[in-house]
Amino acid sequence: MYEGAVQDLIDELGRLPGIGPKSAQRVAFHILEADSDDMRRLAEAIRTVKDKVQFCEVCFNVSEESRCRICQDTKRDDSLLCVVEESKDVMAIERTRSFRGRYHVLGGAINPIAGVGPDQLHIRQLLNRLSDETIQEVIIATDPNLEGEATATYLVRMLGSLGIRITRLASGLPVGGDLEYADDVTLGRAFEGRTSVG
Amino acid sequence: MYEGAVQDLIDELGRLPGIGPKSAQRVAFHILEADSDDMRRLAEAIRTVKDKVQFCEVCFNVSEESRCRICQDTKRDDSLLCVVEESKDVMAIERTRSFRGRYHVLGGAINPIAGVGPDQLHIRQLLNRLSDETIQEVIIATDPNLEGEATATYLVRMLGSLGIRITRLASGLPVGGDLEYADDVTLGRAFEGRTSVG
Repeated sequence: MYEGAVQDLIDELGRLPGIGPKSAQRVAFHILEADSDDMRRLAEAIRTVKDKVQFCEVCFNVSEESRCRICQDTKRDDSLLCVVEESKDVMAIERTRSFRGRYHVLGGAINPIAGVGPDQLHIRQLLNRLSDETIQEVIIATDPNLEGEATATYLVRMLGSLGIRITRLASGLPVGGDLEYADDVTLGRAFEGRTSVG
Repeated sequence: MYEGAVQDLIDELGRLPGIGPKSAQRVAFHILEADSDDMRRLAEAIRTVKDKVQFCEVCFNVSEESRCRICQDTKRDDSLLCVVEESKDVMAIERTRSFRGRYHVLGGAINPIAGVGPDQLHIRQLLNRLSDETIQEVIIATDPNLEGEATATYLVRMLGSLGIRITRLASGLPVGGDLEYADDVTLGRAFEGRTSVG
């Protein structure tokens, strides 16, 4: 509908996740009207990410070097390995400052409908890392949804024979939430996982 | 939080309209994982739009030349001028194929709260165009909201003394909608604008 360059931009933006045709049009017009330097910086940021950013050869977190900052950090605890689905999860856990071990990013979760099986995830590389003597506990921190649970179940079965302690993150009530708004499964888990306080 | 290039991209994406921090992160990771050629095309499309696309010197529609395709088209009716807020509105009207005149894009609507007064819109240029003898009817097609109505009222007052026919788009029930779901104002307008059919 639009003249060449505008329509090209709308088309390219429309291919991004969560950006429908209407949003793509709105963003395209914003880009058209925005400061040229700002938009050149955006274009440059996209190019730079594609040129410079790769995945860590050890843990598969995003990294600008062959090993990510966390894998390079000599002060972290080599005996603890936290397994997550995505790099975003690493960042979320890092923000809590409650974990000082290492990570392993699977690159997704088992999802047969989307054609993602164990072979599409970095599970083989996880097993290689576990053959190293230093890891004493694997913390499975997949998402608390269907795919994450399936992945966790699969990992527990795969790793069960290795003689390493395997743990999962606690399920329960989110802090700051109202009990009455918790869904049934969460409330059930909160009961199952209740802790003694006196 | 992320290493340089990834965080730079998240920051730049987060400045786009309608893209919050979570969406910016999701889009950034999509860009990271997507095909490099696709993403280079996106970066290129942003640059091209900023380099090539401008606003038509006659009607202020987006254009790759100093005059847009519609203004260059000799087959269109010079006696009809449709005034809209944005280039997007030109496209929406063009899709209907029910208008073959010319356009004038105001570049927004009067919105005192956002600091947009008549001087920030292309109203002076509209008056210049109307001093030309050929235009016989001005169709005001601003948005049917508060700002659009204010802009239309302002234009009617400005243009009233020029001796040109001034019209506005019909208000009424949207085709394909249910009468019972129409809001009061729309239903009221549909009554006021009722047409004789027999």
